[in-house]
Amino acid sequence: MNYKLIVHMLSVALVFVALFMTLPVFVSLIYKGDDTIILAISMLVTLLSGITGYLLTRGARGEEIRHRDAFVIVCIAWATIAFFGALPYVLAGTFNTFTDAYFESMSGFTTTGASALTDIEKIPKGLLFWRSLTQWIGGMGIILFALAILPLIGGGGMQLFKAEVPEISVDKLRPRIVDTAKALWFIYVGLTTLTTVVYLLGGMDIYDAVSHAFTTMATGGFSTKNASIAHYKSPFIEYASALFMFLAGINYSLYFNLLQGKASAVIKNNEFRFYGATTLVIMTLITLDLLVTAETTIEDSFRLALFQTTSIMTTTGYATADFERWSPFAQSLLLLCMFFGGMIGSTAGGIKQVRVLLMLKQGYREIYQLIHPHAITTLKLDNKFLSKEVLGSIWGFVFLFLVMCSIATIGMTLCGVDLVTAFTTVLSAAGNVGPALGEAGPAENYSNIPTTGKWILVFCMLAGRLEVYTVLILFVPNFWKR
Amino acid sequence: MNYKLIVHMLSVALVFVALFMTLPVFVSLIYKGDDTIILAISMLVTLLSGITGYLLTRGARGEEIRHRDAFVIVCIAWATIAFFGALPYVLAGTFNTFTDAYFESMSGFTTTGASALTDIEKIPKGLLFWRSLTQWIGGMGIILFALAILPLIGGGGMQLFKAEVPEISVDKLRPRIVDTAKALWFIYVGLTTLTTVVYLLGGMDIYDAVSHAFTTMATGGFSTKNASIAHYKSPFIEYASALFMFLAGINYSLYFNLLQGKASAVIKNNEFRFYGATTLVIMTLITLDLLVTAETTIEDSFRLALFQTTSIMTTTGYATADFERWSPFAQSLLLLCMFFGGMIGSTAGGIKQVRVLLMLKQGYREIYQLIHPHAITTLKLDNKFLSKEVLGSIWGFVFLFLVMCSIATIGMTLCGVDLVTAFTTVLSAAGNVGPALGEAGPAENYSNIPTTGKWILVFCMLAGRLEVYTVLILFVPNFWKR
Repeated sequence: MNYKLIVHMLSVALVFVALFMTLPVFVSLIYKGDDTIILAISMLVTLLSGITGYLLTRGARGEEIRHRDAFVIVCIAWATIAFFGALPYVLAGTFNTFTDAYFESMSGFTTTGASALTDIEKIPKGLLFWRSLTQWIGGMGIILFALAILPLIGGGGMQLFKAEVPEISVDKLRPRIVDTAKALWFIYVGLTTLTTVVYLLGGMDIYDAVSHAFTTMATGGFSTKNASIAHYKSPFIEYASALFMFLAGINYSLYFNLLQGKASAVIKNNEFRFYGATTLVIMTLITLDLLVTAETTIEDSFRLALFQTTSIMTTTGYATADFERWSPFAQSLLLLCMFFGGMIGSTAGGIKQVRVLLMLKQGYREIYQLIHPHAITTLKLDNKFLSKEVLGSIWGFVFLFLVMCSIATIGMTLCGVDLVTAFTTVLSAAGNVGPALGEAGPAENYSNIPTTGKWILVFCMLAGRLEVYTVLILFVPNFWKR
Repeated sequence: MNYKLIVHMLSVALVFVALFMTLPVFVSLIYKGDDTIILAISMLVTLLSGITGYLLTRGARGEEIRHRDAFVIVCIAWATIAFFGALPYVLAGTFNTFTDAYFESMSGFTTTGASALTDIEKIPKGLLFWRSLTQWIGGMGIILFALAILPLIGGGGMQLFKAEVPEISVDKLRPRIVDTAKALWFIYVGLTTLTTVVYLLGGMDIYDAVSHAFTTMATGGFSTKNASIAHYKSPFIEYASALFMFLAGINYSLYFNLLQGKASAVIKNNEFRFYGATTLVIMTLITLDLLVTAETTIEDSFRLALFQTTSIMTTTGYATADFERWSPFAQSLLLLCMFFGGMIGSTAGGIKQVRVLLMLKQGYREIYQLIHPHAITTLKLDNKFLSKEVLGSIWGFVFLFLVMCSIATIGMTLCGVDLVTAFTTVLSAAGNVGPALGEAGPAENYSNIPTTGKWILVFCMLAGRLEVYTVLILFVPNFWKR
């Protein structure tokens, strides 16, 4: 393990985060908040830590990153950035415990959106801006991780990437990491700006518009209001938010295609079609259910169903309704959405649409094979054949995801949490969603979850965000040998 | 599709069932019950239906069973036998609806043990004996299905069998179906007799001993007492019952090995070791949890934990405690047991130990492959390499199982059942367990589940019992073509 290089890369990341941290300092100055000093100190501590680390490990600069190092860098980077990101909360005394501060920060950088805050609107504007910004940084980080870092670390990393992003996506990506990063940055900033403008048109003030644009594009779900998007009581904002959440759940390599004028590649993309279809079907079912059970108008039912389906399917987690009061039928469909998640290569979490699609194809193929025992069948995605290795990786991933969720659920119950809360908070954390059922429903928050339980969820958020493998691999003794 | 042959085989099965139905008639005569006529009529109707069908399809006798026909035969046989098996309940007016009668019968023949009866001890002895016997017949049927029918129907069936039972088991089986059936019969009857004797030693009367031996060996779980095994307040019976449930959850091909003097093959069997280990670990955890939370003696905690773990892991479903009152931790472990189930080739349900073991191996292999990208790795079971096709079939199976459970859970919620009840009753039915959580816990019964919900569970019981594929294949239009 090249520890020097690991610290070096981490330091670079910290300097970037520190630069982002200057934004909330300015916001605090503009709104004349009492949190300016706290934010400035946090920024300086992060910056100095980054610079010190960078200088101490100058020798490692330019060294080749081996794929083993890459796993460690990614995990440590997320965990450490969440630590420095928690500094403002700690210094401001936002929470009673460090656990809560770290939980909130990790929830931000993993774009989960689970919150231990009991009164969001009490938080000073600078600090609250930082909270939204952590999700936006995390969202950018995860797209870079999925589309730029993974395919380039070679060997196991490449194979991992094949399992994560179907091969076809790789072709479409620019070959060099800097170009890729630039293009992603362009798309991400562009979509965020567009979202901000539309939210402004919907009547949000500039502060709320930018904050919500950050957390919409990151499919994060942190809001500046206690009532989340429901606060605005604006159908326009709700429709706009649903649209941009849906857009944020799309594989960024499809935006590359769009930029290159290949609209047909987007429309024909199997995962995109499946993503659209699942969203449409579940939204329709929930609309019908709300019409029957909630006695609302058709437009109300449609809007509530559309918003909540896209919010949970894209693992954003904004609320316009307390779906814990909805029927068990609607709740079970939303749990399914949590499991599915958005498209691979987006900021969304969950096990991802393409994996669900491929598992359905595999399930059907097995049945087909029983009917036609001598037929030779292979699985296709976007008209390309998939190798058995890629499929094996996908089953491996899904199984590890389920194993992790099972163990974490059992761990949560050991902390004295009831079964429903335990299972749904774990699923919500591992899928980077935000709200759960039981004690941490959309109208509640995570403040009452016991401390050990919060750390279990922190682990699930991180592992879920980094495609499980990346984190679990660090627990294999073999990984550290040689 | 050779419908004539299908009806022919079904008729043979009905005649067998009718012969079994003479037993409760005698039991009713011995105990001078008022249900003798009802049982005799049911027997005669079944027998005449069987004979009529047999005579009308004589021409099909000796024709080769193609593997497509085999799927249809197995599904239709189970569904039809459950229909005739429900006749005594219908004629006796045991239930208010035909749905309940069919539910009870299907729960019997699939060895599930879910019951819609509110007062078991009110039922006449002959009819109650029939109820226990349905599980014993179902248990024998499922072992024949898994170990004798599936490997011999060739083509897709053989491939299916490879997915179900690891290849090594196939070698150990006698080549001819009649010999296999005889040997299985011998073991099954032998173990049931032994169980009866031990229950008699524990103080049960002969009626209860035989009834419980039937439902223990079938891992069915129907009891002749409202309080299930707890009724006897006998630690001896509880330990004995736990032992025989564990034995009933073992792959019958291992008993073949034992009969041939190959004890080492049993001890070295990977699935057997895994089955022992999972049972031991979960039992230990629950014992510790009960010690902490329930303030019972060590012996009490150990016995309760041992009994409930084996009861749920082997998908029997006997109760000595209302585990709905246990901690969420213990409940989550028991839900895991429901999912795991016993060994393949036994009367137990669930997704089976060997599949869980292979998924764990595959998950670990994927991680290992990331660490050593150039290593060529293959999965082994009992020192034999497993082909990618076999592994693919296993993922396909597990995924179809999960899809079926998800859709069924959503269906249950549509009937107005709450989420916990919906999910756990479906898992319990598909795993052929019996008790669930929520409205159908170990201290309650299924009488309050809505009619549509009961039919969903009937489907899950059947599909779960016949390894999912066998039933789902009938829903593929392609299956019926040509």
